[in-house]
Amino acid sequence: MIRRTWAMWDTLWLDARLATMVPGSGQPYGAIEGGALAIKDGRIAWLGRREELQGAPEKLAKQVHWVEGRWITPGLIDCHTHLVHGGNRAGEFERKLLGASEAEIAAEGGGIPATVAATRSASDGALLETTLSRLTPLLKEGVTTLEIKSGYGLRAQAEMKQLRVARQLGRSTPLDVVTSFLGAHTLPPDYDGDRAAYITAVAEEMLPAVVEAGLADAVDVFCERDSFDARLCERVLAAARGHGLPVKLHADQLSDSGGAELAARYGALSADHLEYASPAGIRAMARAGTVATLLPGAFYCLRGTRKPPVAAFREAGVPIALATDSNPGSAPVTSLLLMLSMGCTLFDLTPEEALAGVTREAARALGLAESRGTLEPGKLADLCVWEIERPAELAYRVGFNPIAYVVKNGRARG
Amino acid sequence: MIRRTWAMWDTLWLDARLATMVPGSGQPYGAIEGGALAIKDGRIAWLGRREELQGAPEKLAKQVHWVEGRWITPGLIDCHTHLVHGGNRAGEFERKLLGASEAEIAAEGGGIPATVAATRSASDGALLETTLSRLTPLLKEGVTTLEIKSGYGLRAQAEMKQLRVARQLGRSTPLDVVTSFLGAHTLPPDYDGDRAAYITAVAEEMLPAVVEAGLADAVDVFCERDSFDARLCERVLAAARGHGLPVKLHADQLSDSGGAELAARYGALSADHLEYASPAGIRAMARAGTVATLLPGAFYCLRGTRKPPVAAFREAGVPIALATDSNPGSAPVTSLLLMLSMGCTLFDLTPEEALAGVTREAARALGLAESRGTLEPGKLADLCVWEIERPAELAYRVGFNPIAYVVKNGRARG
Ligand SMILES: [Zn+2]
Ligand SMILES: [Zn+2]
Repeated sequence: MIRRTWAMWDTLWLDARLATMVPGSGQPYGAIEGGALAIKDGRIAWLGRREELQGAPEKLAKQVHWVEGRWITPGLIDCHTHLVHGGNRAGEFERKLLGASEAEIAAEGGGIPATVAATRSASDGALLETTLSRLTPLLKEGVTTLEIKSGYGLRAQAEMKQLRVARQLGRSTPLDVVTSFLGAHTLPPDYDGDRAAYITAVAEEMLPAVVEAGLADAVDVFCERDSFDARLCERVLAAARGHGLPVKLHADQLSDSGGAELAARYGALSADHLEYASPAGIRAMARAGTVATLLPGAFYCLRGTRKPPVAAFREAGVPIALATDSNPGSAPVTSLLLMLSMGCTLFDLTPEEALAGVTREAARALGLAESRGTLEPGKLADLCVWEIERPAELAYRVGFNPIAYVVKNGRARG
Repeated sequence: MIRRTWAMWDTLWLDARLATMVPGSGQPYGAIEGGALAIKDGRIAWLGRREELQGAPEKLAKQVHWVEGRWITPGLIDCHTHLVHGGNRAGEFERKLLGASEAEIAAEGGGIPATVAATRSASDGALLETTLSRLTPLLKEGVTTLEIKSGYGLRAQAEMKQLRVARQLGRSTPLDVVTSFLGAHTLPPDYDGDRAAYITAVAEEMLPAVVEAGLADAVDVFCERDSFDARLCERVLAAARGHGLPVKLHADQLSDSGGAELAARYGALSADHLEYASPAGIRAMARAGTVATLLPGAFYCLRGTRKPPVAAFREAGVPIALATDSNPGSAPVTSLLLMLSMGCTLFDLTPEEALAGVTREAARALGLAESRGTLEPGKLADLCVWEIERPAELAYRVGFNPIAYVVKNGRARG
């Protein structure tokens, strides 16, 4: 029984079904039926079955919410986005469907260079405003923590502008933004094909400037045979290590480039995409505790045919996260709930794995498992209250948002 | 120049980019840049270039909206849904992903019979409420006309209940609902395998009762070798013709069952799905003017591998519509915008074809081309105003709703 020996709770949620996502309870989703959850100072103070509470709810908390059997999950976490960028590539999307080749698109100034140009020329204010329009639907779906990468500046000042805007979004919206420096995203046109020279600039000039400005929470690289190979990526990862920053990788999306192994070797928080990850890479990731972040939106948009090796991840015990990869080229996706559907339908995840992928494992992929991702006392009171009969509905429905309330740091966001 | 010789317009929309979707102008999307659109008595009274207007806007209309270069399209039309039904099948979705076979699902009471039982036992009020929750996201995306089928009652009273609720939704929400009687959806358990006997009941008992009550605007059948073959379906179509009702078919989704030919032979408004439509069927549809309604949401949810023959439809001049197929089993889809994305990404439609598929061709598929589907004088003033830079964005983005306003019968819906 809970005794009232400490200061009164701020908020008490009653008549809830809690999908705690805490493993090991023997219940799918770590579910607690007939549950209650108490919040104090922005954190979860207590949760359990209603009948464990002693006394009138009104005496236990300043504010009591009866949620009438609705489900409460941890706040959603989108652990891989490129949300801050200038322009969009709808015109290019249309040109391709009208039959234009990649070469024609490139000759017309399309592809990543178009986004780089638009991002470089945009003001902080313009980037903030257009990013906000893409961030808002995620907010409305219950996203409470979001990762944003640079990678469309490809020069110190422009990369820092992207990260600065990402930080600003964290301050001006009710969600926490985690940033990743992705200077090693693609070779900028200005380098005339010299990948090694650009990687030197990333590792020795851009990264130190970004670190100095305190703009990056982690460092990301795009590891792909035809882009930056494992050897080039390693130079960036080593530099990040030198600065004490955690790393992550875009790895093995289009070919087995040894990205999974490299991720494991550097103790990466996550390796992302992984359609072509090798068995050895998967074993190494399991040993290193590196999360596999799957991005079904990019798979869908690129008309992928090779699925990531989900069964192998499961068997090896590699944690699986799920994210939007929101970006203007290969995934103009602004729904994390749709990624639950696609995770199940395209990648054969179970609905529980999909939900864990945007809560518990997404928190782990950001190095934030201590404070987020499950409903547990001491963690941030980041919650979603859903108008659903069972958690599987979140993955079952396509293009539906059954959110009732979002709570961030204990405060209802409406 | 427009002279003010008739009564003042009710509303005038200015500074708009109009995607009229009227073919033949030589402009993609039938676009008019720098456009204006006038509404009188719930219909489009005039549209054209701003400079063709003579006089101060305030003197031309009681109300003037400046839309600052936003795009205006016809209101969206979802021409194929099973939106009215009891229950959902999230549990079954999860069981399958956990490895249960179709036989196990059936033994557990899942599949269509689960929806039939839930629909039969639901009250009108309960059906109305749960359907409204699924209809609301479509409303918010700018859907102004929606088709709803019966087919989960499979008995006169329960089928009529579905259609009654559909009619009620048309009265209680700001959209027009068109109904289709789909008694020949699947064989109800009560018939013990006797398809012919059930089809007799559909054609000779249920249909007359539905017609008598004025509940159906059209008659639909599910034509599939393993369900109701073309011969059985024809009996229902012939009965519909006897009652003077237009017909449509679920055809050739899983096999070439001669559905496309049958549709053409009966001058069907549309044949829907069509993954396996034969070349002869396609030619017949072209001659008959039957619309091919494509349903990429079902293709996605069922992990389809055989795409409908889009290139052949194009070549033969078969009009292509696009719809959600919203249903609890194979397409729990409540986003028509997402169908634009899937129409392009999964079925290779162009963004313009996709938008035409949910406007002009969807209107045609419902026999409503006279009053809807394009921006033309005399048609209903059903409009969407979008926060986009070009129409292709509607298909390019995934899980994004850039609606600014919806206008139904000339009235802004917010
Ligand atoms: Zn990415
Ligand atoms: Zn259907």
